[in-house]
Formats: sequence, structure tokens, C-alpha cells
Amino acid sequence: MSAKIPVAVLAATGSVGQRFVSLLDGHPFFEVTALTASDRSVGRPYGEACRWLLAEPMPAWARGLTVLPTTPENLGVQIAFSALPADVAREVEPCFAQAGIWVCSNASAFRREEDVPLLLPEVNPEHIELLTFQQQRRGWSGGILTNPNCASTGLTVALKALQQSFGLKRVLVATLQAASGAGYPGVPSMDLLDNLVPYIPGEEEKLEWEARKMLGQFTPEGVRYDEVALSAQVNRVPVVDGHTACVWLETTQPASPEQAAAALRAYRAPALAADLPFTPRPPLLVREEADRPQPRLDRNSGGGMTTVVGRVRADALLGLRMVILSHNTIRGAAGGSIYNAELLVKTGRVKLPLSGAVSML
Amino acid sequence: MSAKIPVAVLAATGSVGQRFVSLLDGHPFFEVTALTASDRSVGRPYGEACRWLLAEPMPAWARGLTVLPTTPENLGVQIAFSALPADVAREVEPCFAQAGIWVCSNASAFRREEDVPLLLPEVNPEHIELLTFQQQRRGWSGGILTNPNCASTGLTVALKALQQSFGLKRVLVATLQAASGAGYPGVPSMDLLDNLVPYIPGEEEKLEWEARKMLGQFTPEGVRYDEVALSAQVNRVPVVDGHTACVWLETTQPASPEQAAAALRAYRAPALAADLPFTPRPPLLVREEADRPQPRLDRNSGGGMTTVVGRVRADALLGLRMVILSHNTIRGAAGGSIYNAELLVKTGRVKLPLSGAVSML
Amino acid sequence: MSAKIPVAVLAATGSVGQRFVSLLDGHPFFEVTALTASDRSVGRPYGEACRWLLAEPMPAWARGLTVLPTTPENLGVQIAFSALPADVAREVEPCFAQAGIWVCSNASAFRREEDVPLLLPEVNPEHIELLTFQQQRRGWSGGILTNPNCASTGLTVALKALQQSFGLKRVLVATLQAASGAGYPGVPSMDLLDNLVPYIPGEEEKLEWEARKMLGQFTPEGVRYDEVALSAQVNRVPVVDGHTACVWLETTQPASPEQAAAALRAYRAPALAADLPFTPRPPLLVREEADRPQPRLDRNSGGGMTTVVGRVRADALLGLRMVILSHNTIRGAAGGSIYNAELLVKTGRVKLPLSGAVSML
Amino acid sequence: MSAKIPVAVLAATGSVGQRFVSLLDGHPFFEVTALTASDRSVGRPYGEACRWLLAEPMPAWARGLTVLPTTPENLGVQIAFSALPADVAREVEPCFAQAGIWVCSNASAFRREEDVPLLLPEVNPEHIELLTFQQQRRGWSGGILTNPNCASTGLTVALKALQQSFGLKRVLVATLQAASGAGYPGVPSMDLLDNLVPYIPGEEEKLEWEARKMLGQFTPEGVRYDEVALSAQVNRVPVVDGHTACVWLETTQPASPEQAAAALRAYRAPALAADLPFTPRPPLLVREEADRPQPRLDRNSGGGMTTVVGRVRADALLGLRMVILSHNTIRGAAGGSIYNAELLVKTGRVKLPLSGAVSML
Repeated sequence: MSAKIPVAVLAATGSVGQRFVSLLDGHPFFEVTALTASDRSVGRPYGEACRWLLAEPMPAWARGLTVLPTTPENLGVQIAFSALPADVAREVEPCFAQAGIWVCSNASAFRREEDVPLLLPEVNPEHIELLTFQQQRRGWSGGILTNPNCASTGLTVALKALQQSFGLKRVLVATLQAASGAGYPGVPSMDLLDNLVPYIPGEEEKLEWEARKMLGQFTPEGVRYDEVALSAQVNRVPVVDGHTACVWLETTQPASPEQAAAALRAYRAPALAADLPFTPRPPLLVREEADRPQPRLDRNSGGGMTTVVGRVRADALLGLRMVILSHNTIRGAAGGSIYNAELLVKTGRVKLPLSGAVSML
Repeated sequence: MSAKIPVAVLAATGSVGQRFVSLLDGHPFFEVTALTASDRSVGRPYGEACRWLLAEPMPAWARGLTVLPTTPENLGVQIAFSALPADVAREVEPCFAQAGIWVCSNASAFRREEDVPLLLPEVNPEHIELLTFQQQRRGWSGGILTNPNCASTGLTVALKALQQSFGLKRVLVATLQAASGAGYPGVPSMDLLDNLVPYIPGEEEKLEWEARKMLGQFTPEGVRYDEVALSAQVNRVPVVDGHTACVWLETTQPASPEQAAAALRAYRAPALAADLPFTPRPPLLVREEADRPQPRLDRNSGGGMTTVVGRVRADALLGLRMVILSHNTIRGAAGGSIYNAELLVKTGRVKLPLSGAVSML
Repeated sequence: MSAKIPVAVLAATGSVGQRFVSLLDGHPFFEVTALTASDRSVGRPYGEACRWLLAEPMPAWARGLTVLPTTPENLGVQIAFSALPADVAREVEPCFAQAGIWVCSNASAFRREEDVPLLLPEVNPEHIELLTFQQQRRGWSGGILTNPNCASTGLTVALKALQQSFGLKRVLVATLQAASGAGYPGVPSMDLLDNLVPYIPGEEEKLEWEARKMLGQFTPEGVRYDEVALSAQVNRVPVVDGHTACVWLETTQPASPEQAAAALRAYRAPALAADLPFTPRPPLLVREEADRPQPRLDRNSGGGMTTVVGRVRADALLGLRMVILSHNTIRGAAGGSIYNAELLVKTGRVKLPLSGAVSML
Repeated sequence: MSAKIPVAVLAATGSVGQRFVSLLDGHPFFEVTALTASDRSVGRPYGEACRWLLAEPMPAWARGLTVLPTTPENLGVQIAFSALPADVAREVEPCFAQAGIWVCSNASAFRREEDVPLLLPEVNPEHIELLTFQQQRRGWSGGILTNPNCASTGLTVALKALQQSFGLKRVLVATLQAASGAGYPGVPSMDLLDNLVPYIPGEEEKLEWEARKMLGQFTPEGVRYDEVALSAQVNRVPVVDGHTACVWLETTQPASPEQAAAALRAYRAPALAADLPFTPRPPLLVREEADRPQPRLDRNSGGGMTTVVGRVRADALLGLRMVILSHNTIRGAAGGSIYNAELLVKTGRVKLPLSGAVSML
């Protein structure tokens, strides 16, 4: 009998699904026992059905797993990592939750529901308690928990540190987002050769509300959104991985760049989420060089889980300016969902099979 | 005898110098009779001394011109287009002005001097009258006039249209700047493959004051800077040509996106600069598509002289948001200096040799 | 009454179709009076139906043309430029030919048929006489003539010059092909950011037989393929436009690099095709620099119709090595079809409406 | 006392030097105790003197090491890894060898000397015995051993497997080489945005002789070069890491693609080099997909030490065609030198301090 928790990856053949498979390889809590995909792939070995697009090789154990349909029946798992597109997620994820499975979803479908936690464990782990409300309200024995949009992720981690120290009033952000954020095939190469696209459908809206929910205050019946006002402009740029954001910030208490940098550096994940396998170490890395962070050089900080901040400087208009970088397919997608799942274990919602392993927590 | 005004290009072998040579090919007013460069190139035919980097072929007439040293003696020109680096420009350009030559400079060296016009003819052609003050004060028979930094250019043209209609209070701008802005060899390819750099030395400062001078009010002894407050964050991105800017704007009078777009569309260059060969036609082009402007698709609008604006939309924090694109080596560099030189002709400071040609004005 | 020949562009909203519309703007012989596309676009103005992707603006006359279905009825044109995909072309192009229309096709569907000319007018204009055989055999009053694959084009022009001077035995070619060759959306950006793909389906086969047909000898019932043996390896690289080819050559008569370069430089289009509007001037440009041709710098030589050759040097194994560059969407696609259509006019198959215009020939 | 062999990295602040520092982190045999660089950096902590350009963070132990001048005096090391430029290497490396230090050099300066081994341990480990000849002839107590040019590396590994099974007559190779091969700043971004450069100074010559030395037969007084004839054409393409080569091959004994692929797959490093820490596992990986290898997806195979081959197919002209990929800064540079140094240990020229560690061999 395995000492690990059996998990599934939904939509495992797509680009986020592949990142789940790769990041879950050797995970101390979880063992992938089921991979699902669309009808075209069902019944084929994953190694054949999946056009693998990561630089890291496909784990050997995944190669031979037979691809299953995306239904909860007979999956035999306690957790399902969902890389489903939003429209499919809306239909399918509740079926899994009803069947007693915890869905750690990367999809946007349920992020905004009042009883669904939108989680960055190093920011708002206490929001996971919304799951109790969710189960009561919906009569589910499992549940759905979500991670935010890839561009909201790094931004929100940095905002949390500043909110906690100084309070936040207004935030303006211009993003330079990597191609991998659009999946595969995603953005045509003709759009990103000697070019960039100053538009991503729906993205600015997500940037403008998601941080407010995550920075908000937990109550048993929902989250009181933080009152910080955000405005975003987004761009797709010719970079493989790593979303960069130029941010202007107005804090409630005035903060010098040195104070802001110190607050960012000092920030630690709340105790509940501080010692999990995917806890970013550190959550925030502040670089001193004038020309950092840069996506190719900094995105893999902390195994891709650390948010990197640089160019923290004064601003005559709003008070502070800085540049924030986050790995969009690790911290901003699959890695974030896995960190969320670890919080399910930490809070006792999912139990490790062998008592010995509990000591890992 | 030629019907055109003899002109020189200073630092003609560099990337901006090459653009001057290319754009001056067939110009109705000007004929390039002298090309200067550093000692290494002096005495060699331009066709050999210059490693030509433009997609357009080197004009045949340039190929055989012997490269001269960058000194005003015996040049026999009335106008010198300067592509000199700032430190050299500071030493050399005054010698030309003293020798009776008009220096249309792309360098930053003198932009901030109170008696030196910083000109975008479609924005502030009346500032050219500072040259009278400059000649009196310095005892020069020629003079120096400058065009702004390539990233300030498109921004300022759009701001002018909005200032005129609504007044301006605050402007925040995040730029995504093309590699050609750094010249050649410029940015190493390792910095722009799967990467971007959120820093360009000195660039943010230029963006924050140059527009204020150009939007300011002319007085015979200098310009009263406009009081608009600007804050900039700049990025170098993997694009060949074309600077993109994401801009937030607070106007004095409230303006809806529709009103702003209408004001941008309706804007025309002041009469003094409205009918010159390099007048952008139109000065501002407003695109309706959600995903435009894009550098590869829009930078050549109006022969690279038109500023392209898109995504004009409301902003909950400052009022307006938009994206502005400008060709950095045409409108933002060599083309801008040439347009300035045309204004010298228009204002009678330089005369066309044959009376017939005057009718072109 | 127009002094020009009415023409249609089939599949006008795609990337090659757009290039046709752009290159036909202001053509001295042809006037585009019909644009066709798939059902989704039929009935809409071209300016709305088409997501224009070229840097050159859409011609004003095209904007208002109503998109028509791709059928020959009531089109009222004498020539149809076909940007259809191969499978559709196979069904549809014969209907146009039967209806008396000349189809200048960029599709691969009929290139290999023995009665269909595969034409590069500066190489084998006499092959156009296959159209007589084609009309007799198929009972058509119009006909189909084709241009080769974009990667075969520049190669074949250079090979022709060398074949004529020295004879050809063996040719090996490794290509580095631009993204635009795959159309839009074409290659995903994730495949061409920090990457290249050493494979293009079906491309190597085309490179290995197409040149042999074009270099072959015309007979009234078909072409006797040249016996040169070709072997190709192809790559897709992160370049917008311009296919580069590294070529090894074994000639029948030995040729030094100097002799080869001289033969390339001296080559002129046969008289029949030497003075048409799209005749490349010159057909072959030989560059001396060690590091040329380069796609961004050289692809627009001769308006994108000239084939550029460089690095002509000795090879210990086969005799000669060189690098060949050709603009894949101009000379290698739409521009090639237009040049072919000009040959229809030149050979009297299509007549200019006004006698005066004939003198243009 | 350390259980490891003290080593130095010469020119440690450059891009290859950084790769040495990164790859030597945690090496079981070697401990970096000295880092040298040019005068500008001498005396400063490495963490300050070095502009670190790798995505992997700088090892903590390196940060505080004081940069030393590049002279053998008082270095206290047994091995020096040289990332020196060729002209400096020619002067400096012999001083180290004379001082009793083994120089594992990535520079081209001594590769061609008859008494200097040019080594790929999985190909020709027996050539290391030239060091005995070298020491006798030059009176050195240390010595110089070299690894080949980055573009020769993968090619030669694949050729060795085929030579061994079928014999080799002729090889033609067209390369698509990554930007990192030119170091930093290296290639200007303007040369690799929407562009490629079909030229690298001196590179084709290296490709044409280096493989012949490595595939040659060892004799105590030198290597009898293999008689295979090679011809190369090289290109610089917009890829960060990973050199791709399209190769045509004529073997002495005929080989089908299946036989060739089988020989490549079956190839193992000779016993002497088969079990070292940097032994590529496997030396050659053959991929079946039609569109592989691709640099971004395959360059890290075997930790960047494995050569990846794909598209093994028949060729009508020479017999075989294939595509070969190798990580140019790992297998093709720093990783290769380290593997060579391990062979010094394996052959007893350098001894591990503690007897226990010898069992690692």
C-alpha cells in the first residue's frame, strides 16, 4: 500500500496538465494514479496521447498510465488537479466535488463564487475555511478550491506584504506576459515575432478583482473584499515563461522605498502554510540590481515558486514603483494548485495514508 | 547649381545616421553633400566605411561620398543633422552653430537648455522662436534645435491633443521599447531572447520632463513648462522597431473615452507645420480593434511619422487608459530631426536656393 | 471603362490572399474587382471580414469590396489569383478554368500535372506553352498555371543560372524558413520562442522535385525533368519573412566560386519575361560580405522579387557552397503568381482593354 | 581537510566561466577554491565582480571568493578549468602546465597541437595518453587537455557511433547555432530579432577538422586523423542554448536508417569513461518524432550532456540524413571540460585526497 494520497490530473495532456504531471513527480504527499483527457485521448497510454512540450522529460510512471475520461466515477482519488478550460470546468468540477473529491482548480470558472476559496497559501491560507461553508451550502462531500490567474499571482503576493505593513489604497499595473500563459497552440508566432500584443481577453478584469478577494478578510460566509482599487493594462510579449509587471502603488501609511523593500523581504507565509513542500522559500525575493528582475534569469527563483521584486523606488505621483516577476506556469498555475492541495492535507481535509508521513507536516 | 539646400549628417555611419541618410534620399528640400564619422572612417568612401543595417538599400549617391571628420570647417552646408552621442554632441554641436550652421540634433545634450527648442513640429512649432533668443545669448550665427527622446515622442503627440481639449493633470506610462532604440550593437541578444529588461539608463527621467517642456508655453526667454505630472516605467522588449506605451491619464476636464478618441482623431498640426514634406498624415491615428496598436503592424503608419493610438478606454482610477505606438527611429529620431529642419526652412531661417522651390512651402 | 484587366483574388482574407491584395494595389495591368473567401466572410465588406496582418495598410479600394463565394459564376474576371489551400484548390480551380478564367495558383494541387506549367518567368517562361496542351486535353477555355513552393523559388532561380553556365549534377540544401510560410495562425509561438523546428510536413519532397520540373526541357506534351539530383533538409526558424538556404552544388563543368558568382550576376530573365512589371531587377543579386544574405536586411531586395546569393565559396566535397535568400510571401508566393499572370498578358492569352496599354509590353 | 580536489576556474566571470562555477557546484570530485578574472575584477568578491547571467542562482560558496589574477602562483590547485579567450589561453595556459597544474581548456588555442588531446571522453578517452608525450616533449609537470568547439561536439559523438558500426566517408553539415555560443555580450540583438546570420568567423574550419582528430587513431606520438571528409555551413539563429545540425552522411558500409538508429542507440562510452559523474546517460538519445530534436525541448536531455538525434532517414544522394542537437554551453563547453577532468582522475593523473573517495571510480 502506498504511503501517498492518490490524485488525478484533469485535462492532463494540455500544457498546464503537463506541468502538473511534471511538478507532481516525486511529490512527498501525492501520487498521480489517474490522468484524464478528452475523448480523442481516452484509452491510449499517456505517453502516446500527449504531445509533451516541457523541457523536463515526461516522468516514466506517467508514460504508461491509460488516459481516462474526465468523470469522477471509479477514479479512486481524493484530489483532482484541474487544468480544464473554464467552460468545461463549470460543468465538470461540481460532479467531482459531489463525488467526494477535492478539486484544486486552475480554472477561472468558480473563482468568484462567494463560497469558493481563491487561494495563495502564502497570502490567505485562512480562506480555505470557506470550504466548510461550501460543503454545507452545496451538500458536497468534496469541494472546489481555486488559485488565481497567473498574472494576479505574483502581484498579490507582493501586495500582501505591503498591505500588511502599510495598507493599500491604489494600484496600477502594466503587465508583460509570457506566451506560455496562453497554452498551446496559444498565440500564433506571427503575433510574437518582432511584435507584441497589448491585449489579452478578460485578463485586465481578473487582475482588477482577484487581488481584492485574496487580500480580503475571511468570514465564515464569505470574504469581505479589500478596498484597494486596481487598474491594469496587459501585454503579451515574446517570452516563453515568466510574467513581468510594472506596478505603481499608493499605500495608506507612507512608505519609503527602503521600508517597502524591507517589508517585502521580511514577509513570511502565515504559519499554516509556512512549511509545506511547495512553500516558496522565500515567498518574496527582492533584487537590488537596477535591471532586475528579468524573466529568463529570475523566473526559476525558489523553484519557480518565489515572487521576485526589483526596482523598488519612489514615485512622485503615487508613492512607490516596482517591478514584480512570477513564473506563470509554476507559481501562477500548476504549482499554485499543488500548494493549495498541500493546505488541504495540512488542515486535515485529506489524510496521508501512513501515520509516519504526518510528521512531515 | 542644385535647387536644394546642402546638408550634412554627423555620425553618419551609426544606426541613427544611416536612418538619416535613408530618409533624406530624394528629400525635396535637402541634398546630403557631407557625411561625417569618427577617425576610423574618415577618408574612406561611405559605402565601405559604413556597415549598413537597414532593410532599405543604401542610396547610390551616399556610397561614393568620402567620409569627413566631424568639424564645421569647409563642410559647405547650411544644416547638420546630428546623430552624435550625447557626450560628443555637447562638445561639437556648438562649434557648428558658431560656424553658422543649423544643427538639427537627435542628441540629448542640449534638450534641457532654456534657449534650445525641444521640438515636435506637429506639437509645438512656435518653440522654434527660441532660436532667436539662443543666437542673441550665445552670439551664434547658426543654432541648435533638438527633438525629444524616442519614447517621449509618440506620448507627447497624443498628450498635446488631449491637453488642448481637456487639460492634463497626471500621466503614468509604462513603455515596451524596441531594440533599435539602443543603436548597434546595442542590447546583447542574450538579453532579448526569451527575455526582456525592465530598465533603460536615464530613460524614465527623460520621459518625465521632456513632455512638460514641449507642452509648455513659449515666451521669448524660454518655455514655461506645463504642470502635468508624469511618472514612467520603461522596458526593453524583443521588438526591432516601434515603441509601445501603456498610458493612464487624468485630465483637468473629465473626458469619456469617446471624447478622448474624437479629440485624438481631430488633432492637426498647427498651420506652421501642417504642410511640410515630413508632416505626419495624420498626426494621430486611432485604431478601434481591441488588440491594436501592435509594433510590427502599425509602426509604419504614415510612413513611420504617424503616432498610433488604440484601446482608448475608461479607467476607474485616473479616468482614461490607452496604448500609444510610435516608430522610434523614424518619428522618434531621424524623421523627427528632418521635420524640424523643414521648419527652419518654413520659418525662413534657411532658404531654398531657387525661388521656384519656395512655392513648395 | 477601365483600362485594366479585371481580376479576382480567391481566399483573399488569408495571409497569402492579403499579400495578393497588397501587391496588386496600383498594378499597371490588373484591377481587383472581386475578392472571395469562405462562407463565414461572404457578404461582408472585405475591410470587416479580413483581419489584416500586413505592415502595409489595406488599400482603400479593397476595404469596401463585398466578399464573394469562391465560385466562377458572375465574377466577371479574366484572371483569378488563387491563395486556396491545396485540397480546396483541387476541387475549385478546375471550375474556374472551365469557365474560361485563367487561374494563377499558389496552391500545390496541380503543380505536378504534366499539362500544368510550374513557372518562374525569369527561369522557364517557355513552359507557359503547356497551357495549349492543357486546354486541348481538358477542353477548358481558361487554364491553370502554378508557381512553386516558397522554398523552391529562390533555389531554382540560382540553380537556373548555374545550370545554364555549367550544368548541374547534385544539389544538397538545408533551409531556414520563415514563420510566414505557414500562414496564420500557422506555427504556435511556443514553437519559435527560444526554439526552432527541424521539420515542415511535405516540404522536403517539394524541394526535391519542383526544381527538376522547372529546370526541365519543354515539349508540347509535357516537360522533360532535368536530371539534377536534389536532397533537402528543412527547418522552421523564428524569422517573420525570408527563407534562407545553405546549398552545396556539384556542377557538370567545374566552376570556381568566382565563375559561379559571375554567372549568377550575369543571369537575366529570358526575353519573354524580361520587361514585365514584376520582373525582378536584377533576378539575382550577389553579395560580397562574409555574413550576407540575412533575411531582415536582404529580403526586400528588388521589392522582394530578387533572389539574393552570398557566401559563394569552394567546397572540397561537391565543388561549390553558397547561401540563397528569397522573400517567401513576395517572390515565393503572391508576387510569383502575379509575375505569372503578367506572362499571360505578354503571350496574348489575356488582352489589355485599351490598345494604348499594350505598348507597356 | 577536504575530501575533494581543489580546482580553479580561469576567466570565471564570463559566460563559460559562470557555467563552470554552476556545474561544479556539488561535484563529487572537485571543489572550486580559486576564481580568476581580468584586472578589473581582481580583489573583489566574485559575487560583486560577476554579472551573473545564468537562470540557476550563483552558488553561495562562490559569492564570497575573492577574484584572483590569472597566474599559477600560489593558487594551490591541481586542476584549472580554462574559459580564457584563445589569444590569452595561448600565453597563459602553458604557464599553468609548467607549474604542475592540469589545464582543462575550453579554448581553441592548443586543440590542433599534435601532443595535445582533443577529448570527448565518450568518444576517444584513450587520446588522453597524449599527455605523457606532451609532458616529455615540453618538460611540463602538468599539462593541457582540450575539448572541441561547441558545434563539433554533438556531431562527433554521433559520428563516432556510426564510424564504429559502418565506417565514414563523407559528411556534410549545416548548423543552426544558439546565441550563447558567442558569449556575452556576443551577438547584438538587432542581428537576431526577425533575423539570422549565415556566418560565424572560423567556425566552419573547426567543424571540418576537429571531428577528424577525435575520430582518429591514437599513437604515442600523436593522432592519425580519420580520413572522413567534412564540409560545413554554419548559421547563428535566435535560440538561447542548443546547437542543431542537419547532417548528410555517406558511410563505408551501407546502412539503412534503422541500422543507423540502432547503432546510435546502442553506442556506449568506452569503459574508461563510462561511469564518471559527467558521463552522459545515455551518450546518444534517438527520438522517433518527425519534428524532433528541438533545442528548447531537448537540449537538457541527460542534464545537458546527452547528444540527441532525430529524423534519421534515407538520402538518395549520400545514404543517410539526420538532425543532431547538443547543449552548447554544457556538453559543448564547461560540462565537456569537467568530464575531461574526471578522466584525469580516472587515469590516476590527479588523485582524490581520501582513499575512500577513490571507490567512487
